[in-house]
Amino acid sequence: MSEVHAARRSRLRAHCAKEAGGAAALVSRPANVRYLAGRAPAGAVLLVPPSGGDVLFGHWNPAADPAGPRPGEEDGGLRAEPLPDGADPAAAAAVLAAERGAGTVALEEHHLTVARHRALTAQAPGLALGDLGCAVERQRLVKDEEEIAALRVAAEITDRALGELLESILVGRTERHLALELERRLVDHGADGPAFPTSVATGSHSGLAGHRPTDRRVEEGDFLTVRLGARFRGYRCQIGRTFVIGTSPADWQIELYEVVFAAQRAAREALAPGVEYRAVDRAARQVLDEAGHGGALGPVTGHGVGLEIGEDPRLSPGAMGRLGPCVPVTVEPGVHLPGRGGVRIDDTLVVRSTADGGPELLTITTKELLAL
Amino acid sequence: MSEVHAARRSRLRAHCAKEAGGAAALVSRPANVRYLAGRAPAGAVLLVPPSGGDVLFGHWNPAADPAGPRPGEEDGGLRAEPLPDGADPAAAAAVLAAERGAGTVALEEHHLTVARHRALTAQAPGLALGDLGCAVERQRLVKDEEEIAALRVAAEITDRALGELLESILVGRTERHLALELERRLVDHGADGPAFPTSVATGSHSGLAGHRPTDRRVEEGDFLTVRLGARFRGYRCQIGRTFVIGTSPADWQIELYEVVFAAQRAAREALAPGVEYRAVDRAARQVLDEAGHGGALGPVTGHGVGLEIGEDPRLSPGAMGRLGPCVPVTVEPGVHLPGRGGVRIDDTLVVRSTADGGPELLTITTKELLAL
Repeated sequence: MSEVHAARRSRLRAHCAKEAGGAAALVSRPANVRYLAGRAPAGAVLLVPPSGGDVLFGHWNPAADPAGPRPGEEDGGLRAEPLPDGADPAAAAAVLAAERGAGTVALEEHHLTVARHRALTAQAPGLALGDLGCAVERQRLVKDEEEIAALRVAAEITDRALGELLESILVGRTERHLALELERRLVDHGADGPAFPTSVATGSHSGLAGHRPTDRRVEEGDFLTVRLGARFRGYRCQIGRTFVIGTSPADWQIELYEVVFAAQRAAREALAPGVEYRAVDRAARQVLDEAGHGGALGPVTGHGVGLEIGEDPRLSPGAMGRLGPCVPVTVEPGVHLPGRGGVRIDDTLVVRSTADGGPELLTITTKELLAL
Repeated sequence: MSEVHAARRSRLRAHCAKEAGGAAALVSRPANVRYLAGRAPAGAVLLVPPSGGDVLFGHWNPAADPAGPRPGEEDGGLRAEPLPDGADPAAAAAVLAAERGAGTVALEEHHLTVARHRALTAQAPGLALGDLGCAVERQRLVKDEEEIAALRVAAEITDRALGELLESILVGRTERHLALELERRLVDHGADGPAFPTSVATGSHSGLAGHRPTDRRVEEGDFLTVRLGARFRGYRCQIGRTFVIGTSPADWQIELYEVVFAAQRAAREALAPGVEYRAVDRAARQVLDEAGHGGALGPVTGHGVGLEIGEDPRLSPGAMGRLGPCVPVTVEPGVHLPGRGGVRIDDTLVVRSTADGGPELLTITTKELLAL
């Protein structure tokens, strides 16, 4: 893996040479550090100077996972530098950059706090500081095949955990218990852990976007919405499904399900390289608008996934930009009717050209309305 | 509860009048917002102007927990102000402060990022910005009886979850499964969730401070270290115990356990109002030093707990300050012998004067060396 990370750092170096006047990059945002250096201790900071000799500064814990760079070692052009207790890795990186005569250091102003920025300025007073902005996040947008393979495994684990739950008896169990059981099954099947807190919503809670599981029990006639995802080698996927509990769904349930399903399909089918982010959102929104549920859709129809669960792009009405190939996104419209419940259907897909077979669906659990 | 929060905000207002020239306080750190305003949506920001009329800015989610201020409502001198999608609550707070003619706004420079600070300056250009520093964290140091009651419940839940685990068969089960089971039991007994990721370490992993559970199975003769805690109404406690698996511990296990137990007891007994933080640390460190294990102790012997798991004070050799009454802290020394394993014993206690009965032990599970 160290070659992969070295190649990513070379791309960042090339970006800094072109866009930031040859500044050294100081990367502090955890997902960005992991992307460029592999697994690193919490709070580690990466210095990527214009001429190479990259250094990862951090506080290693002997109990941490043995993967990733080891303190004091050098691998693939990256040295791992352990720091004394209490030292800020960002300040240590700035001091080294100043010692090496760097003209400017570009740091992640959207991650560093004002207080750390100030302390860093005091410790390396001669150094000019610039803003790296979201250069690493932009680099992370398009995934390589190794990243997509990790997402694929995450989705397989997720489908399996959900499939097992569907075979068990659900009536009478609480949202909280079902959520815990799903998270246990994710880990059983090899996940590092859940990609985000599992949401289980039944009855009047169903269809709510950010529902936290409560002690409400599943009852006959309920809609049941579950939303979960596995994290595998750091990569996070997301699935959401809505079921109906009992022998036969009510008419309003069938109608609402069909509308949300049609909106979700429209957005999935809109996914292609070159398509505007907001066009994907519009595809789902239009279907819901026509059915009189436009107001019920939240601000986004989907978002990128990878080392974080909510990455760029945002598939929303105001989003600027166009999809590229190998960008994994969620498509997750939903409608909640206050007091009654609702439907959410979420998938994780990878954008692919028609020549490559069109969008690749990672979360393959059926989207038929199952009565459980 | 809203009177409690209003009283806390009044104390902050008095602090700003005295120490910050009557600046309005802009509080953004999540635990600080919760302390001063009750449950608030993720990312909410609180404005506490010198003359009252406090406002909580945020993005409410209809699915969030119904406790805490409701958007658009006013309660106990606090108005909850919902924002349009994409608006930064900190910038909205700054704009309102400027409109109301605030001279200076003191914000949490240790929490706000450089980029947010810059955007806020651009949106409220006339406003003078100062640093609130850790004023709210200092206010949170000493707990009121309601906070201690929540910690007491958290500790009861934690003791019960651990007690149940000890009644089950442990040999052959993996660290990962034991950790998941403990977390499930915490929730079963009424926790909001775990206070921090549960650590289970067996055999050569035992005694490591930040061990993440692996697929290693518990074996006869192992030391088994577990470290867990419940979160109840936002308040987090911590317990750590080490057991030996099988009928009779080896001599080295008994010796090591006795040393760590003596160090832990020395630090517990040192807890009293007026005692220096570092004196508590020294009490434990001295026992370990004399037994030749001084180097094995990490940088801290314990830390404060409350709305966060690692709060002030830090009980470490370099810490400045003295304990006050009603400050809950952990006492958690440990020794790990590489390749063999080790012992950790963690308790959560509340500092009390001798007249009040001395330190109040919240985590009451036995600290005898149990052979399971």
